[in-house]
Amino acid sequence: MVSFFFFPRTIAVIGATSNPKKFGNAVTINILRNKYLQSELFLVSHKSQEIMGLKSYKSILEIPEDIDIAIILVPARVIDQIIDQCIEKKVKGIIIITAGFGEINEEGKKKEYKINAKCKKAGIRIMGPNCVGIQNLDIGLNASFIQAAPPGYISMISQSGSFGCASFYAMEREYIGCSKFANIGNNIDVSFNDILEFFYSDQNTQIISIYMETLENGREFLNYIKKIVFEKPIVVLKGGKTSLGMKAASSHTGSLATNYKMLKTSLKQAGAVLCENSNDFITALKTFSYFPIPKGERIGVLTNSGGSSVLFSDKAEEFNLKLTEFSEEFKESISPYLIPLVKKVNPLDMIGGADEITYYNITKIMLEDPNIDIVVACVVIPPFLEMKSDEHYRGIIRAWNDTEREKPLIPLMMFAEEFKVLRELSRREKTTIFFSPHDAAFAIKLLCDRMKLINGLERF
Amino acid sequence: MVSFFFFPRTIAVIGATSNPKKFGNAVTINILRNKYLQSELFLVSHKSQEIMGLKSYKSILEIPEDIDIAIILVPARVIDQIIDQCIEKKVKGIIIITAGFGEINEEGKKKEYKINAKCKKAGIRIMGPNCVGIQNLDIGLNASFIQAAPPGYISMISQSGSFGCASFYAMEREYIGCSKFANIGNNIDVSFNDILEFFYSDQNTQIISIYMETLENGREFLNYIKKIVFEKPIVVLKGGKTSLGMKAASSHTGSLATNYKMLKTSLKQAGAVLCENSNDFITALKTFSYFPIPKGERIGVLTNSGGSSVLFSDKAEEFNLKLTEFSEEFKESISPYLIPLVKKVNPLDMIGGADEITYYNITKIMLEDPNIDIVVACVVIPPFLEMKSDEHYRGIIRAWNDTEREKPLIPLMMFAEEFKVLRELSRREKTTIFFSPHDAAFAIKLLCDRMKLINGLERF
Repeated sequence: MVSFFFFPRTIAVIGATSNPKKFGNAVTINILRNKYLQSELFLVSHKSQEIMGLKSYKSILEIPEDIDIAIILVPARVIDQIIDQCIEKKVKGIIIITAGFGEINEEGKKKEYKINAKCKKAGIRIMGPNCVGIQNLDIGLNASFIQAAPPGYISMISQSGSFGCASFYAMEREYIGCSKFANIGNNIDVSFNDILEFFYSDQNTQIISIYMETLENGREFLNYIKKIVFEKPIVVLKGGKTSLGMKAASSHTGSLATNYKMLKTSLKQAGAVLCENSNDFITALKTFSYFPIPKGERIGVLTNSGGSSVLFSDKAEEFNLKLTEFSEEFKESISPYLIPLVKKVNPLDMIGGADEITYYNITKIMLEDPNIDIVVACVVIPPFLEMKSDEHYRGIIRAWNDTEREKPLIPLMMFAEEFKVLRELSRREKTTIFFSPHDAAFAIKLLCDRMKLINGLERF
Repeated sequence: MVSFFFFPRTIAVIGATSNPKKFGNAVTINILRNKYLQSELFLVSHKSQEIMGLKSYKSILEIPEDIDIAIILVPARVIDQIIDQCIEKKVKGIIIITAGFGEINEEGKKKEYKINAKCKKAGIRIMGPNCVGIQNLDIGLNASFIQAAPPGYISMISQSGSFGCASFYAMEREYIGCSKFANIGNNIDVSFNDILEFFYSDQNTQIISIYMETLENGREFLNYIKKIVFEKPIVVLKGGKTSLGMKAASSHTGSLATNYKMLKTSLKQAGAVLCENSNDFITALKTFSYFPIPKGERIGVLTNSGGSSVLFSDKAEEFNLKLTEFSEEFKESISPYLIPLVKKVNPLDMIGGADEITYYNITKIMLEDPNIDIVVACVVIPPFLEMKSDEHYRGIIRAWNDTEREKPLIPLMMFAEEFKVLRELSRREKTTIFFSPHDAAFAIKLLCDRMKLINGLERF
């Protein structure tokens, strides 16, 4: 089990420096940033005796304590002796951040192989090389040279460090966050499977996300997925789906990319969510972070904008979603709140004059209707009749809160990304917004698929 | 020709009011907002003698001047006499904003038919009913109840007013804008074809965008498209592609939606860009607003992030784009600017340490390379080594400016939407940014298709 990487009692950074233009400095600063971190940090540098006020050791062998994980940032050409010292020191695990191995050429691959063999013999696990490091946001550990992810319940395994970094920007934007993060780089030892095993047992990991370029031990991987997916949603983005992508991937992590069609079929059968692009990947993480699983798949749509509900309906059909027929009771109960022009069909187009109260009342009646399992509230923010930019969203969320958020309520605020007042309200209310019909419909598809998976109806 | 709607000498708003909770107020305010508008405004109300400091007339017949366009906001039940007065007044055109006609029921359809017949006989053109109005941003005319679009070179025909409104939010975000806007609503008279004819001859219209739910006179429409498209790109989004979407559309504008497959084939053959979703629609408008048409289709990619260039390569292959092979001369000329770890293959992964100067130098050499027609600069903003969030983008744009923006330069800043410094720089430099591999690749596909169309190689 590789859990010790995420809960180290002691850490040594080998290649620490006070030069802010070096990665050894970035990792050191990131670990030190959290004053309350329980893990003890030791710095190793062949140059300095003191770095940022901390004593620095010439070698890991000089450190008086046992070391759980050694993070290596020295140049590739001097790595052998550092590895030997780590073995002598009996560290539990090594994170090799240094690049310039298997991703470069055959010689690099041989080097990796040698390092791995040595460490395996000594019972030491290796993360990397060619990686940015790891993070455990639950304990405030950022043992990487990228920014700390916002804290949350998603745990992520990424074969690309920079994709992890970029995802954190997107998570920040969406008010979602990470529990654990691992960039496995060239993954000469610790693999997707090792970390999946740990994430399975890790209580704070509620959603698992994977950015993958290549996969080895595919069968074991799929077995893990099948075991885990009933308890935790697993969201996968595959880089290197096409031959151009695979070529790019091979120059990046030095390994051959995996056949996409086969992977796609197997992942679907196993129950994981395979996303077709980076936008869908973030949408999936946001969906599982914010919404309950519906009891059924019957959707009710309300809107103040015919155009946006038409576009949503198109996407709904593309994703094979089911718009419900309104019952007579339902039509009767909404009547008092609507002007006579409104046709009582699904999507319910309440026309431009619909305000906070209208949205509140209709959303609430939909959420309470036994024939509706999921509610989609479309809004184009009206720039007229003195309406407030956030009033429709307020009405929707008020109705959701009043019904204890039992059913998924999907707010689709068409192209309203720039309304800060909405974003602030969504953060305060701990909920989210979709800005395009595609994203809203994709979110519902994911929720319906998960419902069916959990109910054992079908595997998608 | 319907150009007079967009350049009215005189306008009458029938149903004007000082009550801010009424649409008649919104239209009046929007027209009055521009103090320098040359068109003269007259208000008509059966109630008030003065509205917002302006004299108000009991009837359009009392107005001492000739009226070019009458904008009608009175309730549907009293519209007949208003139309009769407009005919008596010999207005040139009528915009019926009032809803409650053909989109509601058969009776409404009959009413529309009657109104149309009367006006046709009198030689008066009608826009609407059930529309938000029109805009001509070149002269600062907002004759609608939605916000004025940001000014620019896109002219838009939308069958949905709220989709127009939402698009303006997106245009604002993307720093692009409109020349003319028309919401044709139930289009009982003025149709896509009438407005297309005007946009074709209108000098300030450089890009034409269409949101369409239903199409009549499809053959004439396609003939216009074929004629216009060599001079101005035409971007179409179709609402009601699927049976669910068509059902929603029919309750919205009261007409049967058009068969999507047939439309798709014909539009492609005619040379228009048909977008599959609202996000692509905005991406297309932004692409044609900002980039020159390339001379060829050979792409060079540089990056500081393997992951994002892998994802871009996947999308590139999906869109059938061509990544070039770097020439020996090229490889030699970039060598001095790169660390030895960098493999000289396309995409060129310069690794996380690449900074402003590296981006500037490599982008410039790519832009100057005779084997490269389009440059894609991928960036994941590095949160380390004291790099500035906007320095890579600055380097890229500096290189683009130095080469006089002759080739398309596509900045792909992965998930960096929240970096305000980037958005401000992009506005100042009058350029744009793509935040996902899909959007960047789609933009290039559009540029390459347009190049082929103009060169007469193929029609897409």
